Amino acid sequence: MNSPAINIPGYTYGTAEVAPSPSTLADLERLKVSTGFTKEDEHFLRMAGDVLQAQVETIVNHWRANIIAGIPHLARHSRNLDGTPAPDYLARSNQRFQQWIRDTCLRPYDQDWLNYQHEIALRHTRLKKNQTDGVSSTPYVPYGDIIAFVAVLNGSMRTYLAAHDHDAADVSRMHNAWCKSIHIQMALWAGSYMGTEAAGKES
Amino acid sequence: MNSPAINIPGYTYGTAEVAPSPSTLADLERLKVSTGFTKEDEHFLRMAGDVLQAQVETIVNHWRANIIAGIPHLARHSRNLDGTPAPDYLARSNQRFQQWIRDTCLRPYDQDWLNYQHEIALRHTRLKKNQTDGVSSTPYVPYGDIIAFVAVLNGSMRTYLAAHDHDAADVSRMHNAWCKSIHIQMALWAGSYMGTEAAGKES
Repeated sequence: MNSPAINIPGYTYGTAEVAPSPSTLADLERLKVSTGFTKEDEHFLRMAGDVLQAQVETIVNHWRANIIAGIPHLARHSRNLDGTPAPDYLARSNQRFQQWIRDTCLRPYDQDWLNYQHEIALRHTRLKKNQTDGVSSTPYVPYGDIIAFVAVLNGSMRTYLAAHDHDAADVSRMHNAWCKSIHIQMALWAGSYMGTEAAGKES
Repeated sequence: MNSPAINIPGYTYGTAEVAPSPSTLADLERLKVSTGFTKEDEHFLRMAGDVLQAQVETIVNHWRANIIAGIPHLARHSRNLDGTPAPDYLARSNQRFQQWIRDTCLRPYDQDWLNYQHEIALRHTRLKKNQTDGVSSTPYVPYGDIIAFVAVLNGSMRTYLAAHDHDAADVSRMHNAWCKSIHIQMALWAGSYMGTEAAGKES
């Protein structure tokens, strides 16, 4: 990973501050199989990372300033409780949002990645929201708000993936790999929200 | 809707047997806004329904026989507990799976649709799985298994949407509308799995 990652406020990827995920590497393997995620998708995610690397600030600004800011029931989650802006909170979480794009494309999906998926989810629940940045905002983000907005992330990603003039087939392959990863992540986040039973554990 | 719908075993859409959804039409409206689902998407879902209508059997056979059958941790959910095939169960649920494609594209998203989303989710949980068909299969489908496999549904849909020779831009618009609907549905199903707090309700 490039060095700027370590300078992001509240970004604790791979550190001892991150608790173990309740999902195991075997759970992750099953999720990969269920989504059809293969070595080829890993390859195209790396390619996507190369394309997106320099665009992450633009992308997150688009999502946050052009879309979320205009949707009150989503915007409130990065504002103060009285609805006033919380610019420091927004700036810090935007940097982590940007890094999440890089991590999705460029990190190996190992135990550290799995643990940080759990951390990301917890930071949207009552257990950990607001704590990282010491703010008073909404107490949690409903899981359904996340799943719904992911449609926007995925839908807008294709344009950014085309920025390096790859042919349409490769852009589609990068986009498919991205979407599969996001489905794996949504399933993992559900596990953190719901507890283990409904999250992909063996019964 | 076309008349065959009413002859599908266990398909109770719009009947008094279907319990009210815990999600309201206002919740649905918020989910539409979060996914960016507009009147234009409704238009392209109708177009998608016209294209997919005659292909639903082929599509579901592809998902079930070519993909799920080869993934033991998914295939078990439509088999007997000892792992032997349950052909009647599979045939009945395949017909409902086909009808779900039609309903996604062609039904108005009203209270009946919302209630049936809840019913569909419950039929995957411990509360109602196996009851509709009177079978002994896995007691529930982990929510994460559903979310993960949806990546396959979405990924394979584009090819089927191209079957009527619409231009690439319209195929993309149909596909985007499909994906947005699926995100709305995944959020609603999460509500049925998790209870109301994390499902998109106002706090």
